Amino acid sequence: MASTVEHDAMRRALTIARRGPRGVNPQVGALLLSPDGDVIAEGWHRGAGTPHAEVDALSRLAPGAARGATAIVTLEPCNHTGRTGPCSEALIAAGVARVVYAIADPGDHSSGGGTRLRAAGVEVEAGLLADEATALLDSWLTVQRLRRPHVTVKWAQSLDGRAAASDGTSTWITGPQARADVHRRRAEADAIVAGTGTVLADDPALTARADDGSLLPHQPVPVVVGARAVPEAARVRQHPHAFLQYPGDEASGGLRALLEDLRTRGVQRVFVEGGPAVAASFLRERLADELLVYVAPVLLGGDRLAVQDIGVTTIGEARRLAVASVTPLGDDLLFVAHPASEGDE
Amino acid sequence: MASTVEHDAMRRALTIARRGPRGVNPQVGALLLSPDGDVIAEGWHRGAGTPHAEVDALSRLAPGAARGATAIVTLEPCNHTGRTGPCSEALIAAGVARVVYAIADPGDHSSGGGTRLRAAGVEVEAGLLADEATALLDSWLTVQRLRRPHVTVKWAQSLDGRAAASDGTSTWITGPQARADVHRRRAEADAIVAGTGTVLADDPALTARADDGSLLPHQPVPVVVGARAVPEAARVRQHPHAFLQYPGDEASGGLRALLEDLRTRGVQRVFVEGGPAVAASFLRERLADELLVYVAPVLLGGDRLAVQDIGVTTIGEARRLAVASVTPLGDDLLFVAHPASEGDE
Ligand SMILES: NC(=O)c1ccc[n+]([C@@H]2O[C@H](COP(=O)([O-])OP(=O)(O)OC[C@H]3O[C@@H](n4cnc5c(N)ncnc54)[C@H](OP(=O)(O)O)[C@@H]3O)[C@@H](O)[C@H]2O)c1
Ligand SMILES: NC(=O)c1ccc[n+]([C@@H]2O[C@H](COP(=O)([O-])OP(=O)(O)OC[C@H]3O[C@@H](n4cnc5c(N)ncnc54)[C@H](OP(=O)(O)O)[C@@H]3O)[C@@H](O)[C@H]2O)c1
Repeated sequence: MASTVEHDAMRRALTIARRGPRGVNPQVGALLLSPDGDVIAEGWHRGAGTPHAEVDALSRLAPGAARGATAIVTLEPCNHTGRTGPCSEALIAAGVARVVYAIADPGDHSSGGGTRLRAAGVEVEAGLLADEATALLDSWLTVQRLRRPHVTVKWAQSLDGRAAASDGTSTWITGPQARADVHRRRAEADAIVAGTGTVLADDPALTARADDGSLLPHQPVPVVVGARAVPEAARVRQHPHAFLQYPGDEASGGLRALLEDLRTRGVQRVFVEGGPAVAASFLRERLADELLVYVAPVLLGGDRLAVQDIGVTTIGEARRLAVASVTPLGDDLLFVAHPASEGDE
Repeated sequence: MASTVEHDAMRRALTIARRGPRGVNPQVGALLLSPDGDVIAEGWHRGAGTPHAEVDALSRLAPGAARGATAIVTLEPCNHTGRTGPCSEALIAAGVARVVYAIADPGDHSSGGGTRLRAAGVEVEAGLLADEATALLDSWLTVQRLRRPHVTVKWAQSLDGRAAASDGTSTWITGPQARADVHRRRAEADAIVAGTGTVLADDPALTARADDGSLLPHQPVPVVVGARAVPEAARVRQHPHAFLQYPGDEASGGLRALLEDLRTRGVQRVFVEGGPAVAASFLRERLADELLVYVAPVLLGGDRLAVQDIGVTTIGEARRLAVASVTPLGDDLLFVAHPASEGDE
């Protein structure tokens, strides 16, 4: 059983883990506690090629100072020799007596650190604040598990499921709070995807902007799906990052090939902006991990659907959603949902 | 200003008003208070042809016992001689000194009671608990104001606005709690309307049923809209009330003629069950006073829309809704909404 002191230390480790960048490597934090429970060192991981959190913490101590200490780490210490040595070996060599970690390392090559530590006589405890650590590493874990980026599909709709009036006008279905929320969430993604249909119809900038229109500090890479050419005057060409374009059709490997290529570029979180055909394809291919549906309290009728054919033909195939939250944003409601039993199997 | 005692008395008057039947006449309650604020009589209206609430209360007292009393009434005392004499005259004759009422009588022939009382030297105060009284008389007030029954349009949909999967199957989109809620609300209506499309496709019983399938005490009259014949074996023919059928098309005066005819039959509350074409027509014609949208946490895609063309062609015409409540029912959500700035003008 972890003590209260260890519990508090894990909470602190989760906090300092966030100092690291989100990227191909996980955000990890570590604390070293003296046998009396005092914090003697802190460490976190600063990204690919830099020391892991445990090694970072150990490096702050004089040789021998970690003897008998307890290491608190948000992720299981690794067991492989990458650009840095295995952390489990470093902890053993430093004489650490006890290791408490939140979640297991899902990697094929890096897992097994817990077993290695136990074999060397170190006391090991797993699972402390596991939910919090899982939430922190959500997209990184998806990448490890599914071998593709975490995908959020967003759309705005009228209560009756339309994205636009029958003449195609849609500015704005939802209100300013909902739009600001979209921009905040865009800024948390590494890439933002839109179909050529939307690019040609709406000429979106695909940037993440503050209320005053200025660019937020982090900008996702804009990605256009579809064969049609992006016009010379398209606003996406003004984006701080050069846009990527993928055909997205079956012949090119479809959306899976797109996600695979984005992963090799270090993209962990993809935000799919639409339109209705692209959103439906992500759903049909079961590549949507999270849905954000902004529902405006209006009715539109007509045939401009917010999401098109998702491959359901009979009611038994209805795509069940686990609704995580329903939040009012001005007059609108945001549904955050996860397709139930989703993900590549 | 009404006193606390008068406030409490109005609340009590609203409670006893509910003892009366909902029908062509309003539910009204009245209390008589002595000058010391004691309740000396209560009365309520028992339906067309019976004494109004004030007269009912006065009739419980010995002659002269109401002298100097305060009358608390949920609706402005009437000023016309119908099957009963005008209540304003009865109150004046009884020597009542003060009258407090919640809402004005909207009738062309019956209003003016407050003015008549003031002219006779009675102290009159209007508007106490007006919102509660308005809610109580919701459908009756609609009938008076719009000269047609109050219309509730209900549908069930997936989050993306579909009523069925592409093969037409829809049993059940929503769960048992939502369905029980529909039955409870059907039982509060005087008539239940379905299109021939729904009658032919789903063969609904159009009854209000308890969880065990048994009939609830009050059953709305079933109404079928459309020219197509109702099959001999249709379940609606087993309904405790004989069904009514209206063509519903322009030539016959459309849905307005249907509502007008239902009003002459004493129908005050109409519950429109669908389907998508009939629901859309009520919306398009601005004949929907209340919407009940049961939203299931599923996606269906495809072309089976829960509501069809409602006459909106451009985004500026979007039909804004005032959402009164969003209530979880099992896994589903019930939106209760009122079309903003709706109703016949
Ligand atoms: N309500 C909202 O949240 C929202 C969001 C965005 C857009 N919209 C509206 O949506 C409308 C555009 O709709 P849309 O359906 O034409 O646009 P879309 O979904 O943006 O783009 C569809 C196009 O993407 C390409 N594509 C490539 N791979 C695909 C795949 N696997 N699945 C589907 N499409 C693929 C195809 O174009 P190629 O022929 O070029 O290959 C296809 O025609 C606009 O009117 C816009 O206003 C609404
Ligand atoms: N999700 C839900 O809550 C829900 C509820 C009910 C039904 N449904 C589904 O809806 C489907 C049936 O849809 P539907 O559109 O064919 O049926 P509908 O709306 O029930 O009926 C449409 C028919 O009503 C008649 N009608 C008469 N006056 C009309 C008017 N002013 N406006 C519109 N229609 C008028 C016409 O028939 P005539 O040609 O006979 O004149 C018209 O074809 C079924 O599959 C059922 O399962 C879903």
